[in-house]
Amino acid sequence: SQNSNGYISKPKKVMVIGGDGYCGWPTSLHLSNKNYEVAIVDSLVRRLFDHQLGLDSLTPISSIQNRIHQWHSLTGKTMQLYIGNICDFEFLSEAFKSFEPDAVVHFGEQRSAPYSMIDRSRAVFTQHNNVIGTLNVLFAIKEFCEECHLVKLGTMGEYGTPNIDIEEGYITITHNGRTDTLPYPKQASSFYHLSKVHDSHNIAFTCKAWGLRATDLNQGVVYGVRTEETALHEELCNRFDYDGVFGTALNRFCVQAAVGHPLTVYGKGGQTRGYLDIRDTVQCVELAIANPAKHGEFRIFNQFTEQFSINKLAGLVTKAGEKLGLKVEALSVPNPRVEAEEHYYNAKHTKLIDLGLKPHLLSDSLLDSLLNFAIQFRDRVDHSQIMPNILWDVASRKPSGIEPRL
Amino acid sequence: SQNSNGYISKPKKVMVIGGDGYCGWPTSLHLSNKNYEVAIVDSLVRRLFDHQLGLDSLTPISSIQNRIHQWHSLTGKTMQLYIGNICDFEFLSEAFKSFEPDAVVHFGEQRSAPYSMIDRSRAVFTQHNNVIGTLNVLFAIKEFCEECHLVKLGTMGEYGTPNIDIEEGYITITHNGRTDTLPYPKQASSFYHLSKVHDSHNIAFTCKAWGLRATDLNQGVVYGVRTEETALHEELCNRFDYDGVFGTALNRFCVQAAVGHPLTVYGKGGQTRGYLDIRDTVQCVELAIANPAKHGEFRIFNQFTEQFSINKLAGLVTKAGEKLGLKVEALSVPNPRVEAEEHYYNAKHTKLIDLGLKPHLLSDSLLDSLLNFAIQFRDRVDHSQIMPNILWDVASRKPSGIEPRL
Ligand SMILES: NC(=O)c1ccc[n+]([C@@H]2O[C@H](COP(=O)([O-])OP(=O)(O)OC[C@H]3O[C@@H](n4cnc5c(N)ncnc54)[C@H](O)[C@@H]3O)[C@@H](O)[C@H]2O)c1
Ligand SMILES: NC(=O)c1ccc[n+]([C@@H]2O[C@H](COP(=O)([O-])OP(=O)(O)OC[C@H]3O[C@@H](n4cnc5c(N)ncnc54)[C@H](O)[C@@H]3O)[C@@H](O)[C@H]2O)c1
Repeated sequence: SQNSNGYISKPKKVMVIGGDGYCGWPTSLHLSNKNYEVAIVDSLVRRLFDHQLGLDSLTPISSIQNRIHQWHSLTGKTMQLYIGNICDFEFLSEAFKSFEPDAVVHFGEQRSAPYSMIDRSRAVFTQHNNVIGTLNVLFAIKEFCEECHLVKLGTMGEYGTPNIDIEEGYITITHNGRTDTLPYPKQASSFYHLSKVHDSHNIAFTCKAWGLRATDLNQGVVYGVRTEETALHEELCNRFDYDGVFGTALNRFCVQAAVGHPLTVYGKGGQTRGYLDIRDTVQCVELAIANPAKHGEFRIFNQFTEQFSINKLAGLVTKAGEKLGLKVEALSVPNPRVEAEEHYYNAKHTKLIDLGLKPHLLSDSLLDSLLNFAIQFRDRVDHSQIMPNILWDVASRKPSGIEPRL
Repeated sequence: SQNSNGYISKPKKVMVIGGDGYCGWPTSLHLSNKNYEVAIVDSLVRRLFDHQLGLDSLTPISSIQNRIHQWHSLTGKTMQLYIGNICDFEFLSEAFKSFEPDAVVHFGEQRSAPYSMIDRSRAVFTQHNNVIGTLNVLFAIKEFCEECHLVKLGTMGEYGTPNIDIEEGYITITHNGRTDTLPYPKQASSFYHLSKVHDSHNIAFTCKAWGLRATDLNQGVVYGVRTEETALHEELCNRFDYDGVFGTALNRFCVQAAVGHPLTVYGKGGQTRGYLDIRDTVQCVELAIANPAKHGEFRIFNQFTEQFSINKLAGLVTKAGEKLGLKVEALSVPNPRVEAEEHYYNAKHTKLIDLGLKPHLLSDSLLDSLLNFAIQFRDRVDHSQIMPNILWDVASRKPSGIEPRL
């Protein structure tokens, strides 16, 4: 039975690559809860980065085996688990052949911009891991299940900060009297963000040349930690990064407020980006899966719900913290990144709304609960990990710390 | 002594990566002839591809060691030689430290679109070899000679065939009442062409973040074989590819005409591209080196001199062949590629002219001499290598032949 997209009417089996991570784990739970059959593919390399850099999640997190076991105990639902590196095509092939997915959600990349700027070896690792991993996923789909819909996590950072409105993936340009709709120009600002740009170009080509179907979710900065499913049991708890390498803006501010550390505003703080609640990440991914791209279509959605500047976020956290009796101050620290600190920013994000996304906007109550969450775990905070210490323009030429293996 | 670009007044030492190849060898000779101090860096992997695929240059070519030796015998000029893979950073570092280049010309990539479409392993090899190799060059420049000007070979194929005029690297877009000048959108159509798009984005970032200076030469399809310097002695002879994997359009047609093989027009033959004479390749590279980019500047030149459709080239070769008494016919063969066969094409190419390029336009006399050249060597032609046999939409999932090592 096919729907108007020529697709089997409801995709049933979803492979979640990177399903042990911050976005991937709650998404796996959500999809399982919605009665998709879920298989997690993950090398667990993210846990290795923590060991190597001496970092840890704010929240204690269970092993992936225990997470899946606990979910089964609570709900009776099972999840397949394939532990391995998607850069290893033999491993990936076996996972595809045995699971036979209808859709693949691909979260499985090195996703920290600062990590990719530590040194040459990690810059190379990031681009190799992400670009070759994604190439392997494309070849596996072509080889083993050409009908399979790829839902790939990209980032709003691919666009940079152009002085014109940001569209969803494509822009119609009239030039010297002629018109065409072309891929939106990309201006990424770290080796990590660049790896996503490379992925997007590679995926676009395979949709055109091979007729693959793909959705690129250019995701904004995610905040929050709890979803309906992770809240069911402490063994299902999601990871929460607050350090200078993997922590993202709003999550970091909440932890900083909870432990009495000044909020680290990089430079002037006018940097504006799209943000979304982790509960909307899982919702968006499900919407993309339930409404697959057509054969040969490379669809791009900007996946965020609201724009904020860093100064605006710092102000919101300060106010919410004071309400809870915390003394919060924002502090401008020298910007470790090379980026515009005051700029125009207006990015479109209607396509997921059109598919039915009901956004969880950033509210006082969410900020309260995030802050309370941070307060609950504040004894676990390692203060030495809060300040940023990876500088873009140094991009230490020399190997720093232990090198991850390709 | 600095000139207006803040650059040492005349760059003296040029490292030519890929200096054993079709473009790299004549460029090395030309630069040496113009009294630059030249070092060739090459892994010779191109010669390995020939062995693995059972291919050979139309022209007999000497070893790189004999080429350099012969050049020294004829002119008294020396060239340094570093044999190694630029993906090996230890090797590349030693080459940079011992030679201390003022400019690096980077030809050293896997450059065949069909090769990159043979199978997964060669697609991955191509993107790894090209992207990681170029990342290493960027890190080496940053580490060992931040003043060094990178001249990187890109391709006109990065742009694809948009329905608007192609500008040189950047386009000014007015959108919803605002204006910005942004990287020209890229639509590459093979894993090889995509690797060049990835390189361009990576280089642009390092110019911005680290202040490197770089020129991206988006080269058209090169034809011809002799330059002033290669013609001096048979041991200096350049390679000439006519097979379906490495041969490029006009060169292939001349060999086909010489051996009485029908000219292989892919599909409708309306595919239009920019072309240039190999003598203009060496001229353009020297112009880029002699007029370096500024600190932090990422400069893009479209390096070609004339546009032709495949049908137009087939017509020119047919006419020239008949003049020499050859019986030439053009034959449409099923297009192995996924590409538009009839399309708008108008690409700008004024920046190198502004720097002083004096083009060698495609003329009857050049076609005569190319055809005579092909006739001279026609006994060396392997007829079984002429037809294209790598199909884009098959992109054989299975390893085909011997796999190159990463
Ligand atoms: N967190 C955010 O704010 C955010 C924002 C925009 C986009 N994204 C994107 O969403 C995706 C998920 O992000 P996240 O925050 O959950 O990251 P994460 O690091 O928490 O999770 C990524 C997971 O992928 C796995 N992985 C990495 N490389 C792998 C490989 N080669 N083989 C198998 N598994 C591999 C890791 O072990 C990890 O579990 C990433 O692609 C990221 O770029 C995240
Ligand atoms: N020939 C054309 O028509 C054409 C057109 C547009 C652009 N270009 C570009 O110009 C450059 C040169 O093209 P060409 O036709 O001379 O190709 P070629 O294959 O003849 O030469 C490339 C050389 O680079 C070397 N090389 C490849 N990978 C290497 C590595 N990792 N380390 C060290 N050496 C390595 C090869 O051994 C070879 O000698 C390429 O970057 C190509 O993409 C060529």
